[in-house]
Amino acid sequence: EGGSEARLRAFLDGIQHGSDLADLLEQLEDEDRVRVLQLLAPDDPALAAEALAEMEPDEHPEDSLAALNAVQIAAVVAELSDDDAADMIGEMAPADRDRVLAALPHQDAGDIRDLMAYDEESAGGIMTAELVTLRVNQTAAQAIDEVRRQAHGMDEFYGIVFVVDEREVLQGTVSLRDLVTADPSTSVRELVQDPIAVVLPETDQEEVGRVVSKYNLTIIPVVDGGGRLLGGVTFDDVIDIIEAESTEDLFKFVSVSAEEEVRGGWVDAVRLRLPWLFINLLTAFSAASVVYLFEDTLSKVSLLAVCMPVIAGMGGNAGTQALAVTVRRLALSSERSGTPWNVVGKELLVGATNGLATGLVASGAAFLLCMATGANVLLAVVVLLAMLLNLTVGGFAGAFVPTVLERLGVDPAVASSIFVTTFTDMCGFFLLLGLATELLL
Amino acid sequence: EGGSEARLRAFLDGIQHGSDLADLLEQLEDEDRVRVLQLLAPDDPALAAEALAEMEPDEHPEDSLAALNAVQIAAVVAELSDDDAADMIGEMAPADRDRVLAALPHQDAGDIRDLMAYDEESAGGIMTAELVTLRVNQTAAQAIDEVRRQAHGMDEFYGIVFVVDEREVLQGTVSLRDLVTADPSTSVRELVQDPIAVVLPETDQEEVGRVVSKYNLTIIPVVDGGGRLLGGVTFDDVIDIIEAESTEDLFKFVSVSAEEEVRGGWVDAVRLRLPWLFINLLTAFSAASVVYLFEDTLSKVSLLAVCMPVIAGMGGNAGTQALAVTVRRLALSSERSGTPWNVVGKELLVGATNGLATGLVASGAAFLLCMATGANVLLAVVVLLAMLLNLTVGGFAGAFVPTVLERLGVDPAVASSIFVTTFTDMCGFFLLLGLATELLL
Repeated sequence: EGGSEARLRAFLDGIQHGSDLADLLEQLEDEDRVRVLQLLAPDDPALAAEALAEMEPDEHPEDSLAALNAVQIAAVVAELSDDDAADMIGEMAPADRDRVLAALPHQDAGDIRDLMAYDEESAGGIMTAELVTLRVNQTAAQAIDEVRRQAHGMDEFYGIVFVVDEREVLQGTVSLRDLVTADPSTSVRELVQDPIAVVLPETDQEEVGRVVSKYNLTIIPVVDGGGRLLGGVTFDDVIDIIEAESTEDLFKFVSVSAEEEVRGGWVDAVRLRLPWLFINLLTAFSAASVVYLFEDTLSKVSLLAVCMPVIAGMGGNAGTQALAVTVRRLALSSERSGTPWNVVGKELLVGATNGLATGLVASGAAFLLCMATGANVLLAVVVLLAMLLNLTVGGFAGAFVPTVLERLGVDPAVASSIFVTTFTDMCGFFLLLGLATELLL
Repeated sequence: EGGSEARLRAFLDGIQHGSDLADLLEQLEDEDRVRVLQLLAPDDPALAAEALAEMEPDEHPEDSLAALNAVQIAAVVAELSDDDAADMIGEMAPADRDRVLAALPHQDAGDIRDLMAYDEESAGGIMTAELVTLRVNQTAAQAIDEVRRQAHGMDEFYGIVFVVDEREVLQGTVSLRDLVTADPSTSVRELVQDPIAVVLPETDQEEVGRVVSKYNLTIIPVVDGGGRLLGGVTFDDVIDIIEAESTEDLFKFVSVSAEEEVRGGWVDAVRLRLPWLFINLLTAFSAASVVYLFEDTLSKVSLLAVCMPVIAGMGGNAGTQALAVTVRRLALSSERSGTPWNVVGKELLVGATNGLATGLVASGAAFLLCMATGANVLLAVVVLLAMLLNLTVGGFAGAFVPTVLERLGVDPAVASSIFVTTFTDMCGFFLLLGLATELLL
């Protein structure tokens, strides 16, 4: 046991950055994670804290933190940034949460409780309250002394200092570079720049990400309705948000719940996916009922069943392409899009052109099949028309549905491909079997 | 004309940030964009430069830049960061490119040419060469003077200074905060920290994004094979990369080319999507040929054609869910995943469970349909088995295909849903029609 501890220590000596330790911890079982953290907590609590903060939320770093004793918890949490501490403690069971907060200095516990009060996915839920702040009436030299004092030991300081008045109302920002570059007797008042952008604590994190990405900020101030500075959201949290939202958008697109954890267990996956599959079952029944309407036609021309998956599948694919392009277009435009109906027109045109091209090829194949089997060659005309029209419908639906949803103030990403493909399935079957009933019987 | 110019000037006075002007320019026609830039270039070239840099690449800011005269170009490009200038000039037609480079000071044109030599999607293609660099033998006080001198007018300086030796080999980094906080006589040697991570100029931008996101860096140094400092990639470029890669991943997923611009025209969209649709047509023919094998069964039990879209669609949906979760899991793990085969096992289990649940419901519906139409009620058993097995196959394929691709060193995101749904279509038809042939005929 003593030998293995020595080996573990030697091993940990080789690790310099919390992210690398986080990767390692994620490979270990829960009890081994706790053993590593217990070893580290007294000697290098900063490394332990950084590793916990960098672990994937799916890996539940809060469980490892909660398994430490009060002294170890106090040492590690003191090295966590306040927003990471609030996130982690917020994920704990109420009993663990109280025990951990009790282990912290009174002031810190209060600050963390304040942050925990905000919605996790809002600016308040991801902001840090550890900022360097100045008053306008200081000189550059005094300001640098103040930065020196406040920034000491702060783990997220990117050279941006916030200037506030006596009521803590945000006046603007000044960079450490400008303070250093200025004549030492210059007043901060002359150096302060208007804030480029601010957000409210209740602003959704996705919107925070958009603003930070638009203005290239390392930190964006969070203010209350009266303009008082509450905290700041740093670029590293924004990168995490953009990554998480990108997973969420793909998941919505294919009808996977945003709650599903990529490393989650199978029971959770069943629970979260089954409702969507039942919705899909209902939509599949609608497509099937269109087929049922034409059962008589199908029993007379059984080759139509061979064409069904081709027409429906191609329409669904073209519709999904149009949907993906339109959804991303809407997601990436920070302003409400200028000319959305043009998009629908464009996709209609693209669908019709692609429908004509693929329809001609499919129709040629159908012609050969009819010649080989002695079936009515008009089937080739039916296939061409059904393909052309179904891809046109697919392009239209793929662009129209998300555009309308956005107009209605609904997240266009919920226009998951299920609905577009149901629509193209139904239209495809109706076109193929309806045209066949008219032209072949 | 003079009046409209005055109004335009008054309007531009209200705009403070380049991003806002970029949004505005994107709404204008090409010639109006150029008129705005011509007005701005002499008075506020920094705003003009920032706006061009912040425009979406799809909006072709390089065309507006190329339309200016040599004096205006020189003024605007002087305010662009070198990486943005290289990107923009690299997008121009060769004649425009030469004309613009000729308008620049010799040294700047040379630096931009150097950056243009790197692949656009590599670290070299997105790095800036405008860094603040120091030698180890300076004191903190000398270093601050040096920062003051070098950082003046630099538009991307986030408080990180690079320390190099006399051969420009990177020794480490020191933050402006540490320089300010240290005793002025301290040697830089004592303050320098090992670089947390470095990348080579040929490193793919997606990998650069992963490293920056992992270690929360505002700027990551780019070094050549000998360790010489060539430049740095800043967090704002990383945010742009992560957003672009997320669009690309969704596009790959639904078989839209990564080259397609979300605001592109319809002709480009047809050109880029049609090849994928022809691939989809081939896969649809394979599914149709499975149906053709069972034409005899279908002509005897025409209700089977009604069940076909349900079995195939549900399998495709379950497979796509498994694929999305697995692809994101692989994309988000920076290390090669520890236990990938567990994932396949998990998805197999999820597919079987969901297949049983939805199969029972679909089977009940099939039973009622058989009772109503007087068909053989064994069809309900066929539907249950086909659904259970097809969703199991879907879960397996959705997890297996990207996992194998990643093992082979291929980007798992190319396992687009087309291939998984073709597989579930073929299996679904084979299961439904094959079981029906055995049990119903």
